[in-house]
Parts: sequence; C-alpha cells; structure tokens
Amino acid sequence: MPAGLSAGTAGSEPLVLVALSGGPDSLALAAATAFEASKAGVRAGAVIVNHNLQEGSADVAAAAAQQARDLGLDPVDIRSVLVGDAGGPESAARDARYAALAEAAAEHGAIRVLLGHTLDDQAETVLLGLARGSGAGSLKGMAADTGQYLRPLLAIARTTTVQCCEDSGIVAWNDPHNLDTSYTRVRVRQTVLPLLESELGPGIRDALVRTADQAREDADALDHFAEEMAEDLAEISEAGISLPVRALAANPAALRQRLIRLAVASEFHVSLSRTHTLEIARLVTDWRGQGPIDVPGVRVERRENLLHFSAHSEERDAV
Amino acid sequence: MPAGLSAGTAGSEPLVLVALSGGPDSLALAAATAFEASKAGVRAGAVIVNHNLQEGSADVAAAAAQQARDLGLDPVDIRSVLVGDAGGPESAARDARYAALAEAAAEHGAIRVLLGHTLDDQAETVLLGLARGSGAGSLKGMAADTGQYLRPLLAIARTTTVQCCEDSGIVAWNDPHNLDTSYTRVRVRQTVLPLLESELGPGIRDALVRTADQAREDADALDHFAEEMAEDLAEISEAGISLPVRALAANPAALRQRLIRLAVASEFHVSLSRTHTLEIARLVTDWRGQGPIDVPGVRVERRENLLHFSAHSEERDAV
Repeated sequence: MPAGLSAGTAGSEPLVLVALSGGPDSLALAAATAFEASKAGVRAGAVIVNHNLQEGSADVAAAAAQQARDLGLDPVDIRSVLVGDAGGPESAARDARYAALAEAAAEHGAIRVLLGHTLDDQAETVLLGLARGSGAGSLKGMAADTGQYLRPLLAIARTTTVQCCEDSGIVAWNDPHNLDTSYTRVRVRQTVLPLLESELGPGIRDALVRTADQAREDADALDHFAEEMAEDLAEISEAGISLPVRALAANPAALRQRLIRLAVASEFHVSLSRTHTLEIARLVTDWRGQGPIDVPGVRVERRENLLHFSAHSEERDAV
Repeated sequence: MPAGLSAGTAGSEPLVLVALSGGPDSLALAAATAFEASKAGVRAGAVIVNHNLQEGSADVAAAAAQQARDLGLDPVDIRSVLVGDAGGPESAARDARYAALAEAAAEHGAIRVLLGHTLDDQAETVLLGLARGSGAGSLKGMAADTGQYLRPLLAIARTTTVQCCEDSGIVAWNDPHNLDTSYTRVRVRQTVLPLLESELGPGIRDALVRTADQAREDADALDHFAEEMAEDLAEISEAGISLPVRALAANPAALRQRLIRLAVASEFHVSLSRTHTLEIARLVTDWRGQGPIDVPGVRVERRENLLHFSAHSEERDAV
C-alpha cells in the first residue's frame, strides 16, 4: 500500500483524481485536495497527461508526478497521448487531454476528475465565446460541476494559486505554450484582458464571469421550459414536425425561438443559426402570406394554424 | 409654410423628429428620413441640441440646422441647454440632451424622436455594460424602439453612415469630444474594440450585439414569467411579504432569483445585488436551519414553508 491516505480506508472511500499539468493552478489544486481529502471522506489521486508536444515533456510529467506523490496523492498516473490536428492545435490537444482523463477516471473508478481552471480561465473562456457570438451558449463559459468534472477553483483568481504555491514552497512549471501568442487564448490572457482592465477598470474578470453566470442561468431556465413545452406542442408525423402558430405567438421571443430550434434539432439534427431562426419566427410574428422558407436541410411553411417543418435537400430542387 | 413636404399634408400627417448633432451618423439618418418620410406617410423634422460645452457650439448647431433645412426637414428646432455635472460629464450631457429632445417632441407633437445610434455604438454600449457586470441588464444595450425613441441605424455599421454622407456630398462635423480619451466610451471606440477586432477577429462588433440581443430576449422572457408568477405567489401583509418555499424550490434558479428580487423591489423599493440574492436563495436551495439574513433595508427569514421578507433598518438594531 503506497504512502498517503491511511491503508484502512484506501479501498472503501471514493476516489477523486486531480488533473495535474505541473503549472501553478493544478499544483495548488493538488495541494489543497491532498489537504482536504481525508476530511471530505475521499481518496485523492492525480493524473498527468503528457501531450508529447514539447521536448522534455516526459520529464515535466515525471516531475509533476513526483510532486503529486510528495503531496501524498495516490494513485499517480501518467498518461502519454498523441495529439492529432483536427480542429486546430488547441482543440486537438484539448480533445486528447480529456479523452485521457476520462480513460484514467474509468480505469481507476474515480467519481470525479478535478480541474484547476481559475476565475481568469473562466473570464478568458467567456470573452472567447463572446467573440464568436454564436447566440445560444456563446456566453456559457465552463461549468463548475459536470458530474464527471469538477472545477473547484473557478471563483479563485490565478494570482491566488501562484501565491499558494509560493507559500507552500511548491515550485511550479511554466508552460512555454502559455507565452505562444499564436494561440488565441494566450493573446486574450496577455493582451486583451490587461487592456480591458486598464481601460475599463480592474473588476473586468469578475464582471465577465458574473454576467456569464447570469446569462447561463437564464438560458438554462428557458431551455428547460422550452423542452417541457415542446413535448406538449410538437406533432410529429411521417411528413415532418408541426408546431401550433397560436402557442408560438403567445410566448415571448426567447421561448418561441427555442421551440423552433428544438423542433428542427430533434427531427432533422440541424442546429439553426440565429438569423435562420428569426426568419422562421417571422412566419408567426409578421405573417403576410409568405411562402415556404428553406434553410439548410429543412423547409418550413405556415399551413393554416400550424408551422410545418419537413426535410428538404438541395438536391431535390436541383433540375 | 416652409419648403419640404407638401403643404397639403403638413398638418395632418404624424411628425417624427431626427435628433441631429451634425455628425455623420445623424446626418445620414436625417438624409434617409427626409427621403423616406413622405412614402411612409409622416412628416420629418429635426431637433439640434446645443450643449454649450465647446466654443463655437452655436455655430455647429446653426450649420446642422441649415443642413436639415436643405434636406427638406421641417420644423428644424435648435435647443440650447445648460449641462450640469451630476453623475460625471458624459452622464450629465446625456441627461440634458434627452430632456431637451423630450421637450421638443412634446412641443411639436412628434410621435417619435429618431436617434442615429449605429451598430458600433451598440457594441460599445454592450462592452461598457459587460465591464460593469452588474448582473441583470448589464448586457442589455440600447433598445431599437422605446415607444418614444426609435434607433433605425442600430444594425448599420458606422462606416456605412460615413460613406452615405460622402456619397451624398454631405459634409459632416467631427465632434472633438469623440477624440477625448478621458471619456470611457472614446477609449472603448478607439482602443478596446480595435484591439478586440485585431486579436479575436473582425466580427467582434456583430458578435457582441448578437449575444446581447439574445441575452436581452432571455431576460425579458424570464422577467415576464416572474412577474406573472409573483402576482400569484406573493402574500402581502402588514408584516411584509412572503413567498412559498415549495414554489421557489420547484423553479429554475433564474426564476427563483427573479421572484426574490421582485418581492424585495415591490415591497421595499430595494434593488438586490446578485450576491445578496444568491444568499437569500440558499434559504431555499441549501436549507440547514439558518437564521434570518439581513441585507440593506430588508430582513429575510424562513418560517416553515414560507420565505418572509420584512423591513429592516440598521437603526432599529443599534443599541
């Protein structure tokens, strides 16, 4: 039985795994988790993903693993992955990392993987989402608890994790990728947020996160209501799916648009853009006898008191 | 009868007034309004506010008035105002301007005042609101139609209004205040948005506005539902106002928090912060027999199956 938590409980208590990069955020999280675990009635281990993207990455992983063992974490598992290039370098590295974390959690029977994302990471994520502006979800940021992943530091500033490591004599590794301005996130961290702070005030990170929290709550509530209503309202036949115009008209825009998006998503597996959703909604809100509207994959037309959605392929129309 | 629209309809058709600064946005709006008015069955006039904040401001106003008359607008009304200093220079100038516009609209019997705010102005407003991050409403931006004011250019880029003036041979005035970086909005325009554009992509203004549109729709829908529910749920007595715990618990966080905020606002005219609202909500979501919670002006306690709100003054507790 390795050192760390007492042998008597090691098999019976649930396990959490800290995802450890060797940087200050995840090291501070590892230290805090090691400190709190037995009081919380859990065992704490660590999983370190070696992305094999930088020279010496195996050494970095081994050093982080040693730090985890020194903190009393057990098990400590290094996972070596091959990062592809699908969706760009950041996205590919993230996909490989989460796949390895999920695999490690499954093999060790862990109830949660703990991630070291801070308030600063959350503000960066919100700003990146805002820049995409893809309507629903663009403000969402990262969830504090997904069931599989837990982010205990999401309300803690990055400076606090750095200070925590210094105070505990823990030497953190500084990922050179964090200085590589070819990554959008690095530019947000190094250039955009500092400028927003100097021009708009020092509370900008908190303000972004607070706004995103509220927007996410609003979106979640309306998603919930829309799903409940869609079950009652939608009529599905072989010819497609229909929604009653009267109910669409009686509800506020936010619900009307969600009902339209849900109908299309459930029946045709198409995610409507905001522009297309609004165009379809005008068959309800601005009815002047318009003809059918074609959006990618779907044809929508108003028939008497129903909005009718049917499958529509470009090919069918091509002559 | 002055030149412009035909004498025969001048008295009978409703009047709209363009708020004209002499800058490219409002001049382009004035030109477009002059062009469209008779087709839309309205008369179009202009109101120019002389803020008396810069030397020569009376000349600028007189020149803009002449441009309005040349475009065929009638009546053309210059309003000279005295700007105070309440709330800072931007806020004081805005207050004086809107008061003068409202006064002019009332005196001329105008049905709407048209404002030249563009997509760029809206993106700036959204970013300024985000930086405040004051929860509800921080993402709202400016409304396209308030009933009193109409903003027809809110989806049009500022570059388009500049181009429109150039194409029409209209010489626009450039307000030196638009270069004064002591104004937060000027820094957002000149420094923050250009940096966001270069670091995050050229669609940032559209993305900000699109996200704000969606967030505003969501907030409006939930405000609407919460107001309907509050009427059914709230019990008002001499001792204060109560909400049933069961109903608060059964609803999503976004509605629960609005019901709490509405109860406090309606009964005690207090606007709760997000932090205080969440603290009160924990009497529902995280009940462990807590005692009363005091927030400025209000005491909240859980009594059996009710959340009870009563007036609470700091003085009462002082011994």
